[in-house]
Amino acid sequence: MSKVGILMGSDSDLPIMKKAAEILEGFGIEYEMTVISAHRMPDIFVEYATGAEARGVEVIIAGAGGAAHLPGMCAALFKLPVIGVPIHTKTLGGVDSLYSIVQMPSGIPVATVAIDGAANAGILAAQMLSIGNKELREKVKTYCQGLKEGVVKKAEKLNTLGYEEYLKQM
Amino acid sequence: MSKVGILMGSDSDLPIMKKAAEILEGFGIEYEMTVISAHRMPDIFVEYATGAEARGVEVIIAGAGGAAHLPGMCAALFKLPVIGVPIHTKTLGGVDSLYSIVQMPSGIPVATVAIDGAANAGILAAQMLSIGNKELREKVKTYCQGLKEGVVKKAEKLNTLGYEEYLKQM
Amino acid sequence: MSKVGILMGSDSDLPIMKKAAEILEGFGIEYEMTVISAHRMPDIFVEYATGAEARGVEVIIAGAGGAAHLPGMCAALFKLPVIGVPIHTKTLGGVDSLYSIVQMPSGIPVATVAIDGAANAGILAAQMLSIGNKELREKVKTYCQGLKEGVVKKAEKLNTLGYEEYLKQM
Amino acid sequence: MSKVGILMGSDSDLPIMKKAAEILEGFGIEYEMTVISAHRMPDIFVEYATGAEARGVEVIIAGAGGAAHLPGMCAALFKLPVIGVPIHTKTLGGVDSLYSIVQMPSGIPVATVAIDGAANAGILAAQMLSIGNKELREKVKTYCQGLKEGVVKKAEKLNTLGYEEYLKQM
Amino acid sequence: MSKVGILMGSDSDLPIMKKAAEILEGFGIEYEMTVISAHRMPDIFVEYATGAEARGVEVIIAGAGGAAHLPGMCAALFKLPVIGVPIHTKTLGGVDSLYSIVQMPSGIPVATVAIDGAANAGILAAQMLSIGNKELREKVKTYCQGLKEGVVKKAEKLNTLGYEEYLKQM
Amino acid sequence: MSKVGILMGSDSDLPIMKKAAEILEGFGIEYEMTVISAHRMPDIFVEYATGAEARGVEVIIAGAGGAAHLPGMCAALFKLPVIGVPIHTKTLGGVDSLYSIVQMPSGIPVATVAIDGAANAGILAAQMLSIGNKELREKVKTYCQGLKEGVVKKAEKLNTLGYEEYLKQM
Amino acid sequence: MSKVGILMGSDSDLPIMKKAAEILEGFGIEYEMTVISAHRMPDIFVEYATGAEARGVEVIIAGAGGAAHLPGMCAALFKLPVIGVPIHTKTLGGVDSLYSIVQMPSGIPVATVAIDGAANAGILAAQMLSIGNKELREKVKTYCQGLKEGVVKKAEKLNTLGYEEYLKQM
Amino acid sequence: MSKVGILMGSDSDLPIMKKAAEILEGFGIEYEMTVISAHRMPDIFVEYATGAEARGVEVIIAGAGGAAHLPGMCAALFKLPVIGVPIHTKTLGGVDSLYSIVQMPSGIPVATVAIDGAANAGILAAQMLSIGNKELREKVKTYCQGLKEGVVKKAEKLNTLGYEEYLKQM
Repeated sequence: MSKVGILMGSDSDLPIMKKAAEILEGFGIEYEMTVISAHRMPDIFVEYATGAEARGVEVIIAGAGGAAHLPGMCAALFKLPVIGVPIHTKTLGGVDSLYSIVQMPSGIPVATVAIDGAANAGILAAQMLSIGNKELREKVKTYCQGLKEGVVKKAEKLNTLGYEEYLKQM
Repeated sequence: MSKVGILMGSDSDLPIMKKAAEILEGFGIEYEMTVISAHRMPDIFVEYATGAEARGVEVIIAGAGGAAHLPGMCAALFKLPVIGVPIHTKTLGGVDSLYSIVQMPSGIPVATVAIDGAANAGILAAQMLSIGNKELREKVKTYCQGLKEGVVKKAEKLNTLGYEEYLKQM
Repeated sequence: MSKVGILMGSDSDLPIMKKAAEILEGFGIEYEMTVISAHRMPDIFVEYATGAEARGVEVIIAGAGGAAHLPGMCAALFKLPVIGVPIHTKTLGGVDSLYSIVQMPSGIPVATVAIDGAANAGILAAQMLSIGNKELREKVKTYCQGLKEGVVKKAEKLNTLGYEEYLKQM
Repeated sequence: MSKVGILMGSDSDLPIMKKAAEILEGFGIEYEMTVISAHRMPDIFVEYATGAEARGVEVIIAGAGGAAHLPGMCAALFKLPVIGVPIHTKTLGGVDSLYSIVQMPSGIPVATVAIDGAANAGILAAQMLSIGNKELREKVKTYCQGLKEGVVKKAEKLNTLGYEEYLKQM
Repeated sequence: MSKVGILMGSDSDLPIMKKAAEILEGFGIEYEMTVISAHRMPDIFVEYATGAEARGVEVIIAGAGGAAHLPGMCAALFKLPVIGVPIHTKTLGGVDSLYSIVQMPSGIPVATVAIDGAANAGILAAQMLSIGNKELREKVKTYCQGLKEGVVKKAEKLNTLGYEEYLKQM
Repeated sequence: MSKVGILMGSDSDLPIMKKAAEILEGFGIEYEMTVISAHRMPDIFVEYATGAEARGVEVIIAGAGGAAHLPGMCAALFKLPVIGVPIHTKTLGGVDSLYSIVQMPSGIPVATVAIDGAANAGILAAQMLSIGNKELREKVKTYCQGLKEGVVKKAEKLNTLGYEEYLKQM
Repeated sequence: MSKVGILMGSDSDLPIMKKAAEILEGFGIEYEMTVISAHRMPDIFVEYATGAEARGVEVIIAGAGGAAHLPGMCAALFKLPVIGVPIHTKTLGGVDSLYSIVQMPSGIPVATVAIDGAANAGILAAQMLSIGNKELREKVKTYCQGLKEGVVKKAEKLNTLGYEEYLKQM
Repeated sequence: MSKVGILMGSDSDLPIMKKAAEILEGFGIEYEMTVISAHRMPDIFVEYATGAEARGVEVIIAGAGGAAHLPGMCAALFKLPVIGVPIHTKTLGGVDSLYSIVQMPSGIPVATVAIDGAANAGILAAQMLSIGNKELREKVKTYCQGLKEGVVKKAEKLNTLGYEEYLKQM
């Protein structure tokens, strides 16, 4: 039974949105991932979003670009948390996606992450699920500890090599 | 039987959106106007948008602000023209509304007018309906002739009075 | 006799604007397409726009970039619907084109679509023409049904293959 | 024992941030609210954010304006969900606050809501807490039902009164 | 015989555009000023712009707001210099006007000044006319000398009074 | 004796700024072109700008990018027309250059053209010089006629070939 | 002998710029303050900026709005640190001032603070001077301690009163 | 003993930030450079920033991109000058980084330089240190003299070669 639903409006968003899936896999959180369009298949979309809670989904992560309505429309139909991922656009860089997702009216929040921030959407979903799951809390902390150690190693390497040698090895 | 449906996401949009109604009244075009929220009442919204064509609606005008999904979601469900009116916002001036409405993905257009451009939405609806209605075409031309005459009169007045006197009378 | 006139300010816009033509061809709608500049050949432009209705044109689609005046000047002279396509620009991404087209003053609307949204301009023109043409309404619905089926197939493929394999095949 | 910590960088943010408190009160969720500055009192801030989980806080809501670092620094120290509220600014409308909060680097998400969207921050916190709390889920749904009924009533009133009378009564 | 034509798209621009007139009066340059709309009265506009040179107009100053096409369309028809004044707009501050005026395509320049910069448009027109007019060159220099002396006096006053007293007298 | 001075802040602007030179050459207008920096060599710059009029320069064209002060500082020192060319920037597209050039305070105008619009700067300089030079006026009109004929030829070619064939030949 | 020169392009900037003076007074740092325009009085400006170091000025704080060249031109002539204060503008909020000041080319830095951030400019000047002045370092730390205590008091007051009562007393 | 600390939030910023190091090396100023993240390793970061002054660091240069909190958080903990370098971002060009760094609240300034302006950060640090160091002042002036001579040489070369030949040699 999937705890998290990962949705995207177009399969062109998949190279970004897969990062959410990878994060959830790393935490051992079951998820389902699909391409679904609030604009092109509104009936299927309504059915999905309305039925998700009953199927056990506890968080939805939705990515979309441009006039990005998918996350907000999820939030209209699904009453557990919805995380929105604004996808970058070629013309406006993704500021259109960001505004379309974050500027929701009072009553229907979307938890918005950075443009193309699908990895953070996965981490945020894990944090939400960890409220009632001590084991998952530990996993999130271990993950963050890993991030820290990664930077520490880089700092040591930079200290050892100097920046010229470091840059050559990048 | 209403030819045009005027929708707004919140009654705070009414002082803007009523201008579309006034234009349609001026052209003698029947319309219906309601407050409807794709976010707060998605079921009622879907029912409205899905059933509009059968009730005789030929154009929908939808105004919304912020993460403005109402016009785009209308366009997902109603397959005749949808006109979107981005409503200004206090924080971002309405650029959020504009991007949320105009940047629709391929396949689901929204005919977007200026921020707060509800009067133009009414005129555009009349122009669309006038494609198959010669009498309405004449009314649109008469309306535009009136706009022209209004400017001509102002130009004459400015010429007669000079700008200082003209400004005093504004 | 052409029902739709497709105009562009420069032949550099052709790779974008041809998408409007392809859509209209798909719907079996007659169109004419030309390069015309309100700035470089204002006399020819005025003649074109003034005479279009008499030649049977019922909708004009005009694409332009930068200080994009072509759609708005069409709307000043042609009193049936004008659809504006903001073309992306290298320096500002097309936000200059968008503002120049969408922010029309009261009285002279331009039905604006997304930056580079020429395909949507074609669909919107078809929707306008379909108000008085039941057969065309059906074609538009069939087209939208095709879009839906396209997404459904992608969703099924993603479900079957998993995202790693799906991405390899993209 | 507070489940939610509501933080703001300055007491000038209180007229906005109190809306989060009102929402939580409506849901019967215990919260603590304080003024705390990551910039002006970093030691107190670090102590607060580091100790929050042990005190039982499960979600932090942080509002800040301009170069708004409070939400992101909370997310660096507190490993349960952090919700960021960008506060509007007089000069840039709040786009500075929004970018400073939403564009977090990979690994440290902040669940960002609309500019001045503190009410939505409260609702989002409730949704997060409701993942493991069926009773709270029902309260959220009842709240949303109330929003819907509010719009329905306005729609009925507009229908009954007409827009001119409605506007007079606003 | 007017040397400079001052045009504005709407009489709401007059409080700004009159500053150009005042500057020209100060330099003793004959001008004509009118309200003219390229959108609402394209035939009158074309006649004006096409005939201006023959009437002795050597520079046109055109102010417009929003999708501001007046300066650019003047430049399409009048082959002496055209100065554009972007008028501020309530929703976008005038960035829409600015982009619509300054981003002209190659071949049809508009000499753009600051948003609401009508006084500078007047000075720029005088500078252009002064190329072939030594007396006018001196007047421009005298005007600039006056600006300098104005600042020098303020600096002296600030030095004498101190800032607290200076602010009280503002 | 040069009539026009073409200045640029850095030789990296030369590929853009040479277009102004090419235009002036086409019109047979003498010009001088140099790299000069108001920031890096203020003394040389002040000497240049202060002495230009006496050397016979009647118009200065100045291009600069980023915090682009060259055109405005020219306008502070040289009392005949100054044309500013905002150069695109990698990070902000040139909106920084545009604002730094166009938003001049009252009293010191810069005639601003489009981002990277050096060709238009050349044409605008020619238009300014043509106020007192009938022969040059004819050259400008002939140039514009050439632009028109170029578009007419493209329109004919598109009409003859159809868009598919036209695109192949681009 | 003044250690800090506070400059502003116009006396309309004084209500903002006086905050820098107040900060310096609080730290007991001698300063001089004047209105000086790089555009309107370039000769006086060059004299000021060139001679400042010899007069003992060690830091210049310069505020300006719009196409704000004063800080950058100071930095071209004065080789000790220059701090730039972008002043807000009515039309663009101050983003024009900010870009004009911060986006300086390589070789001529301006230490830019927030829009209207004159108080911070004063503090930054003090920090720079404190590098070689232990006593001043202590004063800066005491000042920051005061900021901290101010927030702590507000937090205590909010805790004691509750937000409703706190807001009434604001 | 390092006088300047160069910090960056990620080693992906190194190709930009190394320019600050190169400048400092050129001036013979000792520096330390490390990768440190206020978000991923807040404890190490707090230790670094709190202890820097005692270790002899007199200026910190901090570069970061996106929701860039590193410079501001340094300024919260380190009471000598902090210079912020906004790093460009792929989606928003670096305007997010710029706003996150420059728009600091009153009391905690960050001396912000241009997007990717790390070389200027190095120069600004040298200028700050030169307040109390006459020898360093001379080095800064010599450096600026070198910049000037570089431009003079380019101007001479352009004058000698003409622009066509110059461009071929670029």
